[in-house]
Amino acid sequence: MQFAKEHINRLFQAAKAMFMDLGITKTGLLTLVHDTLDANDMNDEPHVHIRLVVSRGVKSTPYQNPNVNIGLPLIVIIPEIKAVSPSVKTRGLRLATTWVRRGPPDVKDEQWNHISKATDVQACISANVMHVDEALMLDLRGFVKTCNSVNFFIIRGDEVWAPTKDNQMQGITRQKTIDVCRANGIVVKELDFSLTEVYGADEAFCTGTFPSQIHVTEVDGRKIGDGNCGAITKKIQELYSEFVRKDVERSREEILADISAPRDLTHLGIYTTL
Amino acid sequence: MQFAKEHINRLFQAAKAMFMDLGITKTGLLTLVHDTLDANDMNDEPHVHIRLVVSRGVKSTPYQNPNVNIGLPLIVIIPEIKAVSPSVKTRGLRLATTWVRRGPPDVKDEQWNHISKATDVQACISANVMHVDEALMLDLRGFVKTCNSVNFFIIRGDEVWAPTKDNQMQGITRQKTIDVCRANGIVVKELDFSLTEVYGADEAFCTGTFPSQIHVTEVDGRKIGDGNCGAITKKIQELYSEFVRKDVERSREEILADISAPRDLTHLGIYTTL
Amino acid sequence: MQFAKEHINRLFQAAKAMFMDLGITKTGLLTLVHDTLDANDMNDEPHVHIRLVVSRGVKSTPYQNPNVNIGLPLIVIIPEIKAVSPSVKTRGLRLATTWVRRGPPDVKDEQWNHISKATDVQACISANVMHVDEALMLDLRGFVKTCNSVNFFIIRGDEVWAPTKDNQMQGITRQKTIDVCRANGIVVKELDFSLTEVYGADEAFCTGTFPSQIHVTEVDGRKIGDGNCGAITKKIQELYSEFVRKDVERSREEILADISAPRDLTHLGIYTTL
Amino acid sequence: MQFAKEHINRLFQAAKAMFMDLGITKTGLLTLVHDTLDANDMNDEPHVHIRLVVSRGVKSTPYQNPNVNIGLPLIVIIPEIKAVSPSVKTRGLRLATTWVRRGPPDVKDEQWNHISKATDVQACISANVMHVDEALMLDLRGFVKTCNSVNFFIIRGDEVWAPTKDNQMQGITRQKTIDVCRANGIVVKELDFSLTEVYGADEAFCTGTFPSQIHVTEVDGRKIGDGNCGAITKKIQELYSEFVRKDVERSREEILADISAPRDLTHLGIYTTL
Amino acid sequence: MQFAKEHINRLFQAAKAMFMDLGITKTGLLTLVHDTLDANDMNDEPHVHIRLVVSRGVKSTPYQNPNVNIGLPLIVIIPEIKAVSPSVKTRGLRLATTWVRRGPPDVKDEQWNHISKATDVQACISANVMHVDEALMLDLRGFVKTCNSVNFFIIRGDEVWAPTKDNQMQGITRQKTIDVCRANGIVVKELDFSLTEVYGADEAFCTGTFPSQIHVTEVDGRKIGDGNCGAITKKIQELYSEFVRKDVERSREEILADISAPRDLTHLGIYTTL
Amino acid sequence: MQFAKEHINRLFQAAKAMFMDLGITKTGLLTLVHDTLDANDMNDEPHVHIRLVVSRGVKSTPYQNPNVNIGLPLIVIIPEIKAVSPSVKTRGLRLATTWVRRGPPDVKDEQWNHISKATDVQACISANVMHVDEALMLDLRGFVKTCNSVNFFIIRGDEVWAPTKDNQMQGITRQKTIDVCRANGIVVKELDFSLTEVYGADEAFCTGTFPSQIHVTEVDGRKIGDGNCGAITKKIQELYSEFVRKDVERSREEILADISAPRDLTHLGIYTTL
Repeated sequence: MQFAKEHINRLFQAAKAMFMDLGITKTGLLTLVHDTLDANDMNDEPHVHIRLVVSRGVKSTPYQNPNVNIGLPLIVIIPEIKAVSPSVKTRGLRLATTWVRRGPPDVKDEQWNHISKATDVQACISANVMHVDEALMLDLRGFVKTCNSVNFFIIRGDEVWAPTKDNQMQGITRQKTIDVCRANGIVVKELDFSLTEVYGADEAFCTGTFPSQIHVTEVDGRKIGDGNCGAITKKIQELYSEFVRKDVERSREEILADISAPRDLTHLGIYTTL
Repeated sequence: MQFAKEHINRLFQAAKAMFMDLGITKTGLLTLVHDTLDANDMNDEPHVHIRLVVSRGVKSTPYQNPNVNIGLPLIVIIPEIKAVSPSVKTRGLRLATTWVRRGPPDVKDEQWNHISKATDVQACISANVMHVDEALMLDLRGFVKTCNSVNFFIIRGDEVWAPTKDNQMQGITRQKTIDVCRANGIVVKELDFSLTEVYGADEAFCTGTFPSQIHVTEVDGRKIGDGNCGAITKKIQELYSEFVRKDVERSREEILADISAPRDLTHLGIYTTL
Repeated sequence: MQFAKEHINRLFQAAKAMFMDLGITKTGLLTLVHDTLDANDMNDEPHVHIRLVVSRGVKSTPYQNPNVNIGLPLIVIIPEIKAVSPSVKTRGLRLATTWVRRGPPDVKDEQWNHISKATDVQACISANVMHVDEALMLDLRGFVKTCNSVNFFIIRGDEVWAPTKDNQMQGITRQKTIDVCRANGIVVKELDFSLTEVYGADEAFCTGTFPSQIHVTEVDGRKIGDGNCGAITKKIQELYSEFVRKDVERSREEILADISAPRDLTHLGIYTTL
Repeated sequence: MQFAKEHINRLFQAAKAMFMDLGITKTGLLTLVHDTLDANDMNDEPHVHIRLVVSRGVKSTPYQNPNVNIGLPLIVIIPEIKAVSPSVKTRGLRLATTWVRRGPPDVKDEQWNHISKATDVQACISANVMHVDEALMLDLRGFVKTCNSVNFFIIRGDEVWAPTKDNQMQGITRQKTIDVCRANGIVVKELDFSLTEVYGADEAFCTGTFPSQIHVTEVDGRKIGDGNCGAITKKIQELYSEFVRKDVERSREEILADISAPRDLTHLGIYTTL
Repeated sequence: MQFAKEHINRLFQAAKAMFMDLGITKTGLLTLVHDTLDANDMNDEPHVHIRLVVSRGVKSTPYQNPNVNIGLPLIVIIPEIKAVSPSVKTRGLRLATTWVRRGPPDVKDEQWNHISKATDVQACISANVMHVDEALMLDLRGFVKTCNSVNFFIIRGDEVWAPTKDNQMQGITRQKTIDVCRANGIVVKELDFSLTEVYGADEAFCTGTFPSQIHVTEVDGRKIGDGNCGAITKKIQELYSEFVRKDVERSREEILADISAPRDLTHLGIYTTL
Repeated sequence: MQFAKEHINRLFQAAKAMFMDLGITKTGLLTLVHDTLDANDMNDEPHVHIRLVVSRGVKSTPYQNPNVNIGLPLIVIIPEIKAVSPSVKTRGLRLATTWVRRGPPDVKDEQWNHISKATDVQACISANVMHVDEALMLDLRGFVKTCNSVNFFIIRGDEVWAPTKDNQMQGITRQKTIDVCRANGIVVKELDFSLTEVYGADEAFCTGTFPSQIHVTEVDGRKIGDGNCGAITKKIQELYSEFVRKDVERSREEILADISAPRDLTHLGIYTTL
């Protein structure tokens, strides 16, 4: 299963931020996912996409205070067989910048990873109205941040530029793409940049758990590069496929062991037994 | 039924903002509410509180784009028998200011009236951690805006001060309280004010559909006035009770007629037949 | 000539803000306009639209500092015969909200009334890309402000709502429209409002020197009202036409006398002889 | 003594905001002021200016937490004989806009009325560096707010414009000037305005407890009006002098009775006995 | 004496920002500190904590303008014998996030290092009201910045994260802690992060001149790590103690020579004789 | 010709942002510049400064929409013989901080590189009013950003600090100065810093295409360093002169080849034939 540890950790951190005790350990939760796959006989399916959603469960009255919840949280696991249509992979994405902005973390922290998606859905509606595939979103200071359901990158010369991590979905594919680039000698900078630098980029692409990396052909009516998938984007797609292949080859036991392992601080000269 | 027209209008405006066609007219929706009350034999109950929640309904796949919705929206009507315990009415509310801020309308417009309540819930959690009844929330410019689930007012001298309508829940009780005050010669100002002006207020109270007006006894450890329900707050409670009594006495037919009536512009010398 | 005094005063105030001595009096400048109309034999033309643009004139070297200017400012007066096509008046305007924002007055004050129109042009380009007539622009706090080349109003119930004067072009037609409404018993509020309140408005219209008031039929794919010109908008158009007719009937002498008259403060009990 | 009630109330509200128990009643504090004047034989002096400063008093260690304070607050009363030199009254004030901004109330609320004057002093230094009398300060949104030690007004046509009360010193002379104008039929608007509207104003003046109203002759090198004290400013100075004369004629007993009186709500039909 | 050079330099830079001529050289000031220790016979005391506060001195009238100061600045040197109680060191700190924000440098630059502590004191009061040891403060964009009297760090995995230097007290212990970590192979990143990343951190600690590093056990009711002092925090405490030990072993002559030495730019190939 | 490729690329990126088709290739445009120099017999002049300005050309009516443009853009090439007077180089620049702020890229992106210079000109006017050479400008968060017509750097210890690239003119000399420093072992950090860190800097300098680097002697009345050109600034001037000398020695053919060359990605293991 792809990057199980990172997804589980992100879920637990978000639950803690929402003051929500999941009532289960990380390994317990992952075991539930495994059980679900088994129960649906989906272990050998090549294109299973899992959605794991947690809510506070039953309330004594429909009111926002978690104090009126009774009993345990509700855990929903949805495994779907899903594949990006090859035509989308080939034609790439057309984007347009929306008026909807990504807000600050003292209003709604993207790291809460919450299903309160009104902002994203409004941006998505905006994309529909503008007849493009995804809406490109700026932050409150006017810098480029993310698309409504996928993360965003540009390539200028031989450098990959990513908006800083804040105020956008903490995409695991986003982080892994950065890691893979750096491990292979491709420079990635996380910085503020403007739409002008997007229009003038040589390449651009989006990342998501499901589609990995898809190239962007057009933003606000300006063609990106020559309008096709660029050379560095292609290279990253290849490197990433290989990287994922290795990750998913791991056995369930390896993954479970990974999740329950303590921090290794021996390289700092610290022997810790948490 | 209390202020049915205002609640229905607010719902339809919010649905339009979310590009959501409810597939039903305003009178149709209100009739559904009436039917629900009939079906539950709740017409003569004195303390029925209705929650009316609308979602886009079934999706072909769990993805944020409204384009993947299939079929009609889902309409949920929850009638509850609910009364504020007299002791809460008597003891009033203790508030503390939270670090969570109300955001701007290009991020998440409170007028979407959406159930994406992550911001409000985080503020509510903050209130729980601080051991108070509700969290008082500031806007991004540092002015006092609202509580996490009720609207907020202060009284200084003989003037009622309300935060401006923006960036807070468009409370119908909030608006009706303002209307009732003005109709009875009590000055209400909608303006920006700071916590210092709250601490130094003579009285403070909160409004919600359910509790009408409840006085505030304490904010951030500072007692408001003498810590009891103030003279003007009591007066407003009396005026408001009478006002509601008249509204709920109206027959179902009167309410339905009110909802479907066109704008009356004859006082502007305009004869319109929309 | 329509609202000559207001246009001349706006120009002189802006010139003062840019530390620019026009080297001519207000009456002198208006006389130049009259001379231009005479020279072009345009006095009896019903649809003359005048553009009056002032620059600092010749520079000793192409550098931004006004200190390198030599000689007097350059005054350009362009009289054009121009009429809004009746079809535009009939079909109204389609708007979409752009990502381009109106900035604050410590960055670029709209009251400088400057021809530095990069912001407006970028918004206009955005409108072109979205295939609408004008771009609707928000301010940095996310509230609705203006269109890229015309001012914006909505009507909710029997009230006209206008964004506050700041951070938008100081349209003289905008101000005169407000004045005409108030003089005729139509309530106009200048306040912050959000897109949701635009989508849910009964009517909307734009104002400009040239088109006076044109109704808005659609914003971001949401139809406004029933998509036609509303009853109050029509009323305002009629009242405004009559108002303009009276203004343009004034003789050149009356207008010149008006421009050079001192403030009349006698109603305050002040007898001033500036 | 001039506006004793307002000064005392402002002090008590600020102390509450700083969670500081002054350990004395309002009438007690005013009596101390009277005693100080008596002890210094200053009762018949025409130009006594009183500074009343309160601190938390002695600390067990120099640390910011009020918990380490021991004993009662320290009350300092400084009566000074002080008069604005007639030449300043005659020549008026020259201002220049500083880079220092007024901050928001969740950072430092001007209503804390605190002697933490680093912001004001930095602006004052800026004025010294620019060789003007006072620095004009903008707020974080770029609108005109206040001078570094006095409040600021402009007059356009026959209207007085004042920046909104927020983010500036809650000057009692500022408020009383507004009250006096309104009581005498002079329109005062509290609103956001920009420097361009200052440069283009007919008149401008500053207010402070000590200098009452002084006209402004120049802002950022632009002459205001004709550079002299304007007709409306003069009128306000006259009206205000008369208003103050009546206030200071009150006996000590009248003032003390005024300070300890409860709110009068009889005009609202409320008979309160707090 | 610990980090004398850095403290003296910080003081002189701040005085320059406040346009304040201290009337003494850096070595002169340090000599005064030495003299004070000698006069109090405190040289061999192991726990002396020195506060060095400078004010403009005597004024001819209580007014904010430095121009009314007469004579030299006042220099106050307070040596105290002070030790963190071992129990605090053992139990660590409990924090809660306050509504009070750190402001921007054009309002009040934390680098002025000024005793205008109203913001900090208000945050401290907020901590008292919430019954925690220190208040955690966000900046105006909603990111975690500092505590009210100590600086703040978190540890995620094997990385130390510190808020960027801006808008917080320029803690010398903060900087030295970063230096010590980097010199010992511990990665320190200075970046924007949110409360969610604090709640999900493995460890957190605060720094101050006096307590060096103290671990944080709880933030907003969420336990940090397992609620005890973490392995990397302990390691940093050890490394830092050793680092300080070496610094304080230096003779007075070495410290004085260090303070008066010019910049050494020989490694850039520049031979400078300032 | 100095840094022709970078200037041409910046122009084309800006034109794309303004949705402007220049109707000419990069090499075509550079050839026009060469032709202009030839036509003016300026090839052997040592101090030729070229201004290359592009506008949309003729419009059918004076209106902001690019759709009313007819025909090709207008290209203006102004070669001037121009030299910084040696006295300016010797005496350095005096700066003062202006109230005018650099805005965000969703209002006016500095990368549009547009001649809409109202903001810069207002800052320049502010500098004139304050009797200094250039105005120092902050961004909306209060950090130091740029001067009105040149970029700004400070040197603290042995580090060069530059404001981050955003919200300021994308100076090519600015970038080349950074490149030259880094290539020669001088550390350059791009970060947010405040005026206090400017006042306390050891050195400061400005960069522009024309003057290269000029030292700053004074900011807001505070002397920088000892008021002369500092040792590192001098070193950078020498390194930069040598760097420019090599660049301008290149033949026209080399420069043209450089402009039309594709990205070289062979070091990434990518063989691209765009």
